[in-house]
Amino acid sequence: MTNIDLCLEEKHPEHFGIRYAITKTLFSQKSEFQQIDVVETRGHGKMLFNDGLAMVSERDEFVYHDMIAHVPLFVYPDPKQILVIGGGDGGTLREVLRHKSVERCVMVEIDKVVIDACRNFIPQTSFKLDSPRAELRIEDGVKYVADCKDKFDVVLIDSTDPIGPATPLFGEEFYQNVHALLNEDGIVVSQGESPFFDKKWQEKLLTIKGKFFTKTHIYNFSNLTYPGGLWSFTYASNKYSPTKDFDPSRVTDSGLRFEYYNEGIHLAAFALPQFQRDNLDALLGDQ
Amino acid sequence: MTNIDLCLEEKHPEHFGIRYAITKTLFSQKSEFQQIDVVETRGHGKMLFNDGLAMVSERDEFVYHDMIAHVPLFVYPDPKQILVIGGGDGGTLREVLRHKSVERCVMVEIDKVVIDACRNFIPQTSFKLDSPRAELRIEDGVKYVADCKDKFDVVLIDSTDPIGPATPLFGEEFYQNVHALLNEDGIVVSQGESPFFDKKWQEKLLTIKGKFFTKTHIYNFSNLTYPGGLWSFTYASNKYSPTKDFDPSRVTDSGLRFEYYNEGIHLAAFALPQFQRDNLDALLGDQ
Repeated sequence: MTNIDLCLEEKHPEHFGIRYAITKTLFSQKSEFQQIDVVETRGHGKMLFNDGLAMVSERDEFVYHDMIAHVPLFVYPDPKQILVIGGGDGGTLREVLRHKSVERCVMVEIDKVVIDACRNFIPQTSFKLDSPRAELRIEDGVKYVADCKDKFDVVLIDSTDPIGPATPLFGEEFYQNVHALLNEDGIVVSQGESPFFDKKWQEKLLTIKGKFFTKTHIYNFSNLTYPGGLWSFTYASNKYSPTKDFDPSRVTDSGLRFEYYNEGIHLAAFALPQFQRDNLDALLGDQ
Repeated sequence: MTNIDLCLEEKHPEHFGIRYAITKTLFSQKSEFQQIDVVETRGHGKMLFNDGLAMVSERDEFVYHDMIAHVPLFVYPDPKQILVIGGGDGGTLREVLRHKSVERCVMVEIDKVVIDACRNFIPQTSFKLDSPRAELRIEDGVKYVADCKDKFDVVLIDSTDPIGPATPLFGEEFYQNVHALLNEDGIVVSQGESPFFDKKWQEKLLTIKGKFFTKTHIYNFSNLTYPGGLWSFTYASNKYSPTKDFDPSRVTDSGLRFEYYNEGIHLAAFALPQFQRDNLDALLGDQ
């Protein structure tokens, strides 16, 4: 029997709640770090919730994963060595590996329970976790970047919100270490929260990145799952501007087709609504 | 006593529900056309609901109203005569009248109860309804455009969804009449539903517009109130391309400042996500 009248509500007491109709609970477990639930919903396919917040929905995960991966990978020339911090559902890795130039993608996820839940119940995002070009490490990303001696072309911080296990991923020491393990022309892109609700975190992330990188940007995308729809990534590099150094023909010539990303969306994502520009302009730079 | 635990839920059974915490019900009445409620919410200020669907939220109405008005008004040179069909809350009229060139803005709203409710409870959107340049008409917009002998530079279809009283506003006869009352170089922009959920309606609107106009476009914006966040307007003209005939300096030189719209957002709004491009490309034209 399916419980089509059961609802799971993501609560944001200051704003609103988003209710999903659940037809089946597939997985529910408290890990060392967080409560993890995978449910089958009526309208969004399977969804992953960490501590009651929607992380992945099969219906629209393509938006987030397109935008975290393809924006930097179509800017950096011939990207080979990629590091993903977080991203236990595997969707970011999946998109990174679509770039043929990529030789190795290290993915560092702190919570094995997330990976196992997605492996077992959300193959749509996790099916590339065992690729020969993927190097999966179950460990603390903060510690990994502090100790790592390898160098990377692109680092993607595919983190949850700055509460719980991901809190240190929004700190200065973490970005000092990320800077150290990037090649001199490397790019780092990070999950950047909501333009409508998280001005404070966007300011903080850009301020920290500005200490280590001369080019600091923020770009937006619209999805169904993160509250408010409009969501951001921050971008930083000491060499490549994500707009001036972007050649649209690289996308059209790649032979790759995406569901959300394309060469027009790449450039458009950097056009900020005026309220966001007013909030953040002083922290954006491209020298 | 405020009922902070009361919730109003906008239900989309196939997708999800959005729950707003209500602190006060300000107005509730069934008009000839629809059920109208104005409530005070905890996170979104005052909100207007028609038949249980959120129409306006004080928190983010600026996004929709910026984008319906300023995109065409910054394309059409020196716009003077404007027609708004629907838009009873007054927000579209408010933005239209910020353009100094506008001599007259006729607004045709079918439901006087919506206007009165917004006049009394949502001055943020309604405070320009009595402007000397505004000509408010309480009548059926479908009939108005069929009978009208005046000519307009820009027509804005600020309608509810294609259910209930707004259904004929999504039909061919209506656009034939809109075409007839536009100047030869006129522009019509219409509320265009959701890229994620309303492919069928977007196709229908663009197909109809394509029968009367050689330039047919769709552009997107992200707001908090309409389900899924990402929402669209369709654009049509026989003369002006909204991108090629757009001069960004008109915005920066205007002295006007907006909360969402700016010259970068204008152009970026026409960059469609790939899934939307795949759905609609054959219906977009710019000859």
